Amino acid sequence: MGSWEENIRRVVPYVPGEQPSDTNIIKLNTNENPYGPSPRVKAISMDMDFLKKYPDPRAGLLVDKLAAYHGLEPSQVFVGVGSDDVIAMSFMTFFNSGKPVLFPDITYSFYDVWADMLRIPYEKKPLNDDFRIVKEDYMNNDNGGIIFPNPNAPTGILVGVDFIEDIVRANTDSVVIIDEAYIDFGGESALPLINKYENLLITRTFSKSRSMAGLRIGYAMGSAKLIKYLNDVKYSFNSYTMNTPSIILGSEVIDDEEYFRNCLAKIIDTRDWFTEKLTELGFMVLPSKSNFVFAAPKSISAEELFMKARDNGIFFRYFKSPRIDRFLRITIGTREEMEKVVNFLVSVL
Amino acid sequence: MGSWEENIRRVVPYVPGEQPSDTNIIKLNTNENPYGPSPRVKAISMDMDFLKKYPDPRAGLLVDKLAAYHGLEPSQVFVGVGSDDVIAMSFMTFFNSGKPVLFPDITYSFYDVWADMLRIPYEKKPLNDDFRIVKEDYMNNDNGGIIFPNPNAPTGILVGVDFIEDIVRANTDSVVIIDEAYIDFGGESALPLINKYENLLITRTFSKSRSMAGLRIGYAMGSAKLIKYLNDVKYSFNSYTMNTPSIILGSEVIDDEEYFRNCLAKIIDTRDWFTEKLTELGFMVLPSKSNFVFAAPKSISAEELFMKARDNGIFFRYFKSPRIDRFLRITIGTREEMEKVVNFLVSVL
Repeated sequence: MGSWEENIRRVVPYVPGEQPSDTNIIKLNTNENPYGPSPRVKAISMDMDFLKKYPDPRAGLLVDKLAAYHGLEPSQVFVGVGSDDVIAMSFMTFFNSGKPVLFPDITYSFYDVWADMLRIPYEKKPLNDDFRIVKEDYMNNDNGGIIFPNPNAPTGILVGVDFIEDIVRANTDSVVIIDEAYIDFGGESALPLINKYENLLITRTFSKSRSMAGLRIGYAMGSAKLIKYLNDVKYSFNSYTMNTPSIILGSEVIDDEEYFRNCLAKIIDTRDWFTEKLTELGFMVLPSKSNFVFAAPKSISAEELFMKARDNGIFFRYFKSPRIDRFLRITIGTREEMEKVVNFLVSVL
Repeated sequence: MGSWEENIRRVVPYVPGEQPSDTNIIKLNTNENPYGPSPRVKAISMDMDFLKKYPDPRAGLLVDKLAAYHGLEPSQVFVGVGSDDVIAMSFMTFFNSGKPVLFPDITYSFYDVWADMLRIPYEKKPLNDDFRIVKEDYMNNDNGGIIFPNPNAPTGILVGVDFIEDIVRANTDSVVIIDEAYIDFGGESALPLINKYENLLITRTFSKSRSMAGLRIGYAMGSAKLIKYLNDVKYSFNSYTMNTPSIILGSEVIDDEEYFRNCLAKIIDTRDWFTEKLTELGFMVLPSKSNFVFAAPKSISAEELFMKARDNGIFFRYFKSPRIDRFLRITIGTREEMEKVVNFLVSVL
């Protein structure tokens, strides 16, 4: 055999959260929405014959609806196959200077995976002892870009729009990406800033608040200039990424604002109730503005509790990583599911 | 404003073929299949509530069916969002040596776009005067990889399995990718070679013979080793690329071999009939084993004919590129559509 294997890009693959197919499981490990998508989606009958044609490469129906919904021009909206696709494309497009990209040490676990794969240097800035992002770490205007989620994951902690504006204003030489995957669960969006700062990109996903993880829809909003650069790279990678069902079904849910708001309200209520219960049970719970809580048990190790829950058909997410290995990330399911979780916790603790 | 714009990846974007929404148009410009997907697809009722969950990151249902269909192990099959996604990931994974990748000067127009975007050096090897790939150009075992479609596009010309085996055997130090997007329209596949050569990757798409361009499904087959490297990169880019509708609907069509074979036979018949008609009309037609023909008119320029057809609601593909600017690429539609095209050509010529 020859040496072809020597010339290959080797990466340590990311391991996604388990997707067990057993529907009896209370699945609180990947921050999905317990409520299905808008009933409008069920009423759609798709023309299957039409699948023989390529989708609209612009995904115009979806882009135009998102633009109108957010009060933007279509030229300010980019769509992709989940926000992972959107952010990966953004890394390729914007984090290209050779200088290190900055993000927190405790954050979405894909950032360093993308940077490693794309050979982009990076520097992790430690959260403080309260697991908060330290603004001063991101003010040097001498970096290859900045990215963090707001609220942050897996902490669930939100920063204010002023905090973000200070960072964007200070870093005129790089692009700042705010990953707002969880912003709909009680945070204030930095979206209004995109009309003021050309170098700010906001990303969103349909997988959490929009209950459509199975469709893979993510999007980004920013200045028309930023979006054009992103589209140029995207069209050079794969012209037709959004398939026809995603474009049609994704567009449909945007019109059902009432159902959307109702589901959000239920999740926020359940989160606050569940946080109280956890606190009563002795957990240390970080203040969450997302659809999950990050909580450390007192009298049992997080890992042991994770395993016990798993044996009882309840899936949490556990990260065996420095600083956070005493926490569990628990997605907020329905009130009924969370009551079962509380009963389980009472029985164990 | 700052200098953030200086640090951005700038690419010349690929321009996809037009996707006009007017259904009266005879659309023969993007090599879609005129027959819709298997009627089995129409009979499926998808559980829309289930869209709230992430898809299976393995796309196991689809991967396992494709493996069984082709007589392979699931570990030998990789799936992606169209073969564009599969090949882009393959460029990232396998064409990583710093040496130039080899492909024909006249070929699928995305290869140099991907190479440019990913900063991969490449060398285009001219087709000969009969528009055939010259085997000797690909025998040096001193390159960063090799890729070409078989049949080639936009020529439609097929090479034999022996031709491919010679190239694969000679290039033990690099990965050889054969893009079999059009192989089902009358070519012999190099697939059996993957069990003999670790460095051979075969890619396929659901967009042509499977009539599902709107779903975006592509796949690759190769040694388990090659597929593992590809999956490692893919999981590091986007863990969940195939959405739930693609997994479900894509799996369904594989079971309808009879419908599949019938549609292929109709397209092949129509292609051969249409080729005869074009020849009678004085066109020079390259011998096609795909679902399109590449044909040069005699008494009118290709560009002029392209424009006239367009004015008459008939879309061909015209490449204003050296060596091929006297040709039109014409997708094979239904017999009825191609009769209309012949009538149009008779009226013009």
